[in-house]
Amino acid sequence: MKATILYGPGDIRVENVSDPVIQLPTDAIVRTTRSCVCGSDLHGYHGEATGVARPMGHELIGVVEEVGSAVTSVKPGDFVIAPFSYQDNTCVFCQEGMQTSCQHGGWYGNPETGGLQAEVARIPQADGSLVKVPGINTDTADESLLASLLTLSDVYLTGYHAAFMGQVEPGKIVTVIGDGAVGLSAVLAARQLGAEEIILMGRHTERTDLGREWGATEVVAERGEEGINKVLELTKGLGSHVVLEAVGLMPAYEQAYGIVRPGGIISRVGVPQYESAPVGFGSLFGKNARLAGGPAPVRAYMEPAIEQVLNGEINPGRVFDRTIALDDVAAGYAAMDNREALKVMLKP
Amino acid sequence: MKATILYGPGDIRVENVSDPVIQLPTDAIVRTTRSCVCGSDLHGYHGEATGVARPMGHELIGVVEEVGSAVTSVKPGDFVIAPFSYQDNTCVFCQEGMQTSCQHGGWYGNPETGGLQAEVARIPQADGSLVKVPGINTDTADESLLASLLTLSDVYLTGYHAAFMGQVEPGKIVTVIGDGAVGLSAVLAARQLGAEEIILMGRHTERTDLGREWGATEVVAERGEEGINKVLELTKGLGSHVVLEAVGLMPAYEQAYGIVRPGGIISRVGVPQYESAPVGFGSLFGKNARLAGGPAPVRAYMEPAIEQVLNGEINPGRVFDRTIALDDVAAGYAAMDNREALKVMLKP
Repeated sequence: MKATILYGPGDIRVENVSDPVIQLPTDAIVRTTRSCVCGSDLHGYHGEATGVARPMGHELIGVVEEVGSAVTSVKPGDFVIAPFSYQDNTCVFCQEGMQTSCQHGGWYGNPETGGLQAEVARIPQADGSLVKVPGINTDTADESLLASLLTLSDVYLTGYHAAFMGQVEPGKIVTVIGDGAVGLSAVLAARQLGAEEIILMGRHTERTDLGREWGATEVVAERGEEGINKVLELTKGLGSHVVLEAVGLMPAYEQAYGIVRPGGIISRVGVPQYESAPVGFGSLFGKNARLAGGPAPVRAYMEPAIEQVLNGEINPGRVFDRTIALDDVAAGYAAMDNREALKVMLKP
Repeated sequence: MKATILYGPGDIRVENVSDPVIQLPTDAIVRTTRSCVCGSDLHGYHGEATGVARPMGHELIGVVEEVGSAVTSVKPGDFVIAPFSYQDNTCVFCQEGMQTSCQHGGWYGNPETGGLQAEVARIPQADGSLVKVPGINTDTADESLLASLLTLSDVYLTGYHAAFMGQVEPGKIVTVIGDGAVGLSAVLAARQLGAEEIILMGRHTERTDLGREWGATEVVAERGEEGINKVLELTKGLGSHVVLEAVGLMPAYEQAYGIVRPGGIISRVGVPQYESAPVGFGSLFGKNARLAGGPAPVRAYMEPAIEQVLNGEINPGRVFDRTIALDDVAAGYAAMDNREALKVMLKP
């Protein structure tokens, strides 16, 4: 089968590799219907050379081909969504809604588990890691429906996680930092959770326009001190109750604590490209600002989101503005990297 | 009147200064019944020479002597508790329960406002900053009652704030880092909020014994990696749902993220003696650990706590293990600094 492999910074290739096989009774093999490129894939694409060939991708919808002997919840032929982490969905952390910390879980995009930007994938802990969507025929399904279902694998529900951990609710002013696909998803999710005042910080008009459609009531193009002052101005000098940080870089974090209101919450879902950051009296502590967020346990949010997609209440698939063949994945990474594309869908 | 002045590291003196007077119509003048020394006072006592003579103290119970023309909620003769920050208790942040961020509030212990380790104090924003307790005669009141009421000025309600921001509730495992007066108060508060499993990290037996009386079910004397491993062992390897950090030093922060469970909350009330700290994938983000806390808006928690003290439900005044005359305040600082005393009460 074909799979995407990152060999080093900027060196991404599609190669023929051997088909994945059932390794454990809890595994399933899934044939990819659609996969996609994530903003977080670009960290590796930009990163240091590791000398390790790394299979890429962690977002997928597809059709089950084969299941291990212990798998009971899906069977060959089922259309499924794969959350971007795998989990048993039964351990104590999964029961507490923290599936990304599952005691028997883990990540895709490494030599052990493989990647999901591939024609076929091995899904560990299939009972906890695949969610069946009945009634989908991949040959006849509407492209926009497939796109929206694919976002439940990661991007939309990562935005949702930001809003959920930020305790967004009616009456709360919400500011979203970042107009990438996760930031826009966070806008949509904040609106779903009842926010009526949503400030979107971003400067790509074609993206912030979608943000406005999804619920952003103000757009702030400025960054840094200027951006902070603009948000403070929009909030009568009080700051934002909730800040959803969908970037992961230090300047975004600095903006976040600059605009968060006393007692407010900064909820991060952009994978931090830093380990230490200000949290003392001058940043978080002095104003009782709270910090939340992390890798989204999308499995926890899946069922109601599928319902919302199927009944047309939300259409998060609109973040995809380009669809390319898996063979052309290198062009997809490049297009996202130079911001020509918001999010790239891959067709095997 | 006599007041406590810090001249430089270790150089703390009681001096005669002019009596404070009403400066604004919202001020009140209060004669001190009891004041005390706070762990956070020791930061200045240890700190760098600033060249500024700094009036000290921010905890006080007393009797109103005089009020400005705009003050309506207290009158001369009233017995009152002064929260450790002053606030109008009406602004938008006060209404949101963040009185320590009051738009018209501020701190004691500086040349502008003066300190509360003094015979008489000027209290700004008296309507928001003094809480009357009816029926207290300071000449005849029980010493232990006065002690407990004094803790509502700061230490007990700072512990309570930690537990409140940590979202302590029945079923949550709570770990308290620090066996100082705030840490012990956090144990008592966590118990009040329904925690049944409370681990206290501290190694002064006479202190942790009081912690056990107040609700600690386990005591961990070890620190650092050893302490982390001990707590993980006690929590079946899962970690603590809530960590209340009542120290403010980096090793305590490191212990906190080492023992917090995925999705758990670290709530800090020890004033951080650092500005930056680990918050990235390897510390908070990866396990969706949350960070909360800050200067306690004790005004928000005052009324129910007074009720609990008056009806004998809680006795937080037991943190005071030494009472000295204001004249001897230097000995009080020294006793707390070298850990001979847990918390020192001052009698003017």
